[in-house]
Amino acid sequence: MSRLVMKFGGTSVADLERIRRVGRLVAEEVATGKQVCVVVSAMSGKTNELVAWTDQAGAAAQGLAASDDEYDVVVASGEQVTAGLLAMVLRNMGIDARSFAGWQVPIIGDDSHGKARIVDIPPANLDAALEAGQVAVIAGFQGVTEGGRIVTLGRGGSDTSAVAIAAAIGGQCDIYTDVDGVYTTDPRIEEKARKLSRVSYEEMLEMASQGAKVLQTRSVELAMAHRVPVRVLSSFIEPDAPEDVRAANGTLVCDEEEIMEKRIVSGVAYSRDEAKISLFGLPDHPGVSSKIFGPLADAGLNVDMIVQSHARTEGAANMEFTVGKRDAARAQQIMQGLKAEIGFEDIAVDDNVAKVSVIGVGMRSHAGVAKAMFSALAEKGVNIQVISTSEIKISVLIDSAYTELAVRALHAAFELDTL
Amino acid sequence: MSRLVMKFGGTSVADLERIRRVGRLVAEEVATGKQVCVVVSAMSGKTNELVAWTDQAGAAAQGLAASDDEYDVVVASGEQVTAGLLAMVLRNMGIDARSFAGWQVPIIGDDSHGKARIVDIPPANLDAALEAGQVAVIAGFQGVTEGGRIVTLGRGGSDTSAVAIAAAIGGQCDIYTDVDGVYTTDPRIEEKARKLSRVSYEEMLEMASQGAKVLQTRSVELAMAHRVPVRVLSSFIEPDAPEDVRAANGTLVCDEEEIMEKRIVSGVAYSRDEAKISLFGLPDHPGVSSKIFGPLADAGLNVDMIVQSHARTEGAANMEFTVGKRDAARAQQIMQGLKAEIGFEDIAVDDNVAKVSVIGVGMRSHAGVAKAMFSALAEKGVNIQVISTSEIKISVLIDSAYTELAVRALHAAFELDTL
Repeated sequence: MSRLVMKFGGTSVADLERIRRVGRLVAEEVATGKQVCVVVSAMSGKTNELVAWTDQAGAAAQGLAASDDEYDVVVASGEQVTAGLLAMVLRNMGIDARSFAGWQVPIIGDDSHGKARIVDIPPANLDAALEAGQVAVIAGFQGVTEGGRIVTLGRGGSDTSAVAIAAAIGGQCDIYTDVDGVYTTDPRIEEKARKLSRVSYEEMLEMASQGAKVLQTRSVELAMAHRVPVRVLSSFIEPDAPEDVRAANGTLVCDEEEIMEKRIVSGVAYSRDEAKISLFGLPDHPGVSSKIFGPLADAGLNVDMIVQSHARTEGAANMEFTVGKRDAARAQQIMQGLKAEIGFEDIAVDDNVAKVSVIGVGMRSHAGVAKAMFSALAEKGVNIQVISTSEIKISVLIDSAYTELAVRALHAAFELDTL
Repeated sequence: MSRLVMKFGGTSVADLERIRRVGRLVAEEVATGKQVCVVVSAMSGKTNELVAWTDQAGAAAQGLAASDDEYDVVVASGEQVTAGLLAMVLRNMGIDARSFAGWQVPIIGDDSHGKARIVDIPPANLDAALEAGQVAVIAGFQGVTEGGRIVTLGRGGSDTSAVAIAAAIGGQCDIYTDVDGVYTTDPRIEEKARKLSRVSYEEMLEMASQGAKVLQTRSVELAMAHRVPVRVLSSFIEPDAPEDVRAANGTLVCDEEEIMEKRIVSGVAYSRDEAKISLFGLPDHPGVSSKIFGPLADAGLNVDMIVQSHARTEGAANMEFTVGKRDAARAQQIMQGLKAEIGFEDIAVDDNVAKVSVIGVGMRSHAGVAKAMFSALAEKGVNIQVISTSEIKISVLIDSAYTELAVRALHAAFELDTL
């Protein structure tokens, strides 16, 4: 019997009316004879309320010990509430259901409170419920450590819960959200953006990493590793919507081999969450890079794009790199502390930058994408500050004021609107 | 090392400011070298919010199965939040602390969802935390079944949690609430009411059963059975209050032997939660009582006071009894259904009644209490409808309009204001 994990985010379970709509979507899948697990987030706004209380309680303050473990205890309660409520709603529709908190599944996590990774999901309890004909309604975003403490998986962790559960029980994973699929780019910027019916794991991973917010990067990595078919679809399309509307709902994230027509470029992503740090007047000799990036890595800061250039001064170089916007102040502080050792003359931080990326598995076998990308940007007068590439992606850092212009220019240049 | 369980109700933890005040009260006890467990309720208002959601989700509706188990999942989340927040607050005061949900202690309950009884509290986990110098902050009102489901102990169950934990770990139990102890009667009715410094388990049990809301009946039963010393005191008196104010805080509930001066009457309790059901024109022969009270007992309805009287018609009797106000409609329905079988002529339900009781262990060895009580009420023109007595209590049912008058008259008659 085929198995399905359905995941609903906070806006899809924001109140009882919406939870009942989720109930109807679950009922429809149950009616087709599938064994169904449902993973739910906290009701929209509830997590923020809980987090605000932990702030007031001094979660961030340094008392006897950091209170990340207790933060998890407080915040994980939100998903527990939704799971119980949805189980009730399903029963009142005549569907056998029961809720599972993370510790009841159990979803075993490591001890990294607030951002735990899933270590294991022994499937016996879920198997028993499913085989008994029950819908298992599981609190997302949470797990339990080997030592029996509650852990959370970090914001957006419910996607990861859902994919991991699908991997554990062997099934497809449907991620219900407030959009009806993965688009060629953000429709709020380019109204000609088109929904993709299929996208490969690799492309989805790059899109998520490069700023597309529809799926968490971690959940895509996990789906790719375990070959879990993931469908992204809207929870706002009702079971009683017209057949063509329902058929058009969703994007399947799957193996590249399952996509018949390979496109050169599948999408344009952008991110304004980056800051550029520039070091001027560096000594131009080997070893300087490791003096810069070693300490940043030790501090747990992720460096994304890097470019080194020769300075006008003879024998000197400049280095530019990007970090997450909220890490910028810390990176600057670390660099300042090493000014003498590294030997640079000056430092500048610019957070008026955006990263725009074109992504597509077709790039592997198709040259000329970079040239087409740079030409399209040049035509609109967009200056490229830094470039980075992977096998299936090219990213450029630009002045953030040009973000929308660049996204639209690239969307048109690669004919994504007429796909 | 002496052990202490401190319990704080919803109003004592209503917001972060109050949770910090609780933290200061805990810190003071820790500073005296005691090993401390803290039992907390949900933040005031939160349980009502959660219950409202379960109502909307149709907890009460009869779908595939009653959803009492899922009701428990939802409602138990409130205490988990408070426990995590208090643990954080304590750590930020430099006190080692960690939270325990019911399943982590574990507090083993039976399967009676929504009103579970505590079956066992293996003390190993709490012992380990206390011996390691940690304050154990425990979510009240909840437990876990042998099958691993969350159960709640019913409203007010946090008192029961606290007493049961004190019994399990061997310690005193301090119940912090919004009043500073047990009074001779409700100070809102009789301003001359005096706080008792000590009261026996037996008296406290009768007071709780007869309507005094300061402690749950079940928690007093449990304390009496395990001889747990229980102190009732106010959480609104700060550690930095004047010494005499602090010394005057609280009432100790203890063995009768520990109370030096026995009073004849210790307190006057009242309850407006009763309804009187009258059956008129019953056949006056043996067996009629069991035909009435058998079916009520089978339906789980508690009958409190009973009086049978002869009717004016020859060979006929009337029967009057009280049930909880919210059970009145159901009791009436059951009686109507058995009208022919029981053979009564008419039925009346009156919920404008109140039960007023005088309570005191001294009654055991002192006659004349009933006479004094009835005289005091007669003097004020209060008509007695039904009477019931126990070894240490006399209760009368009266027109509820006379409640305050009767309470004040009895308080004066037994000189409780000059105790």
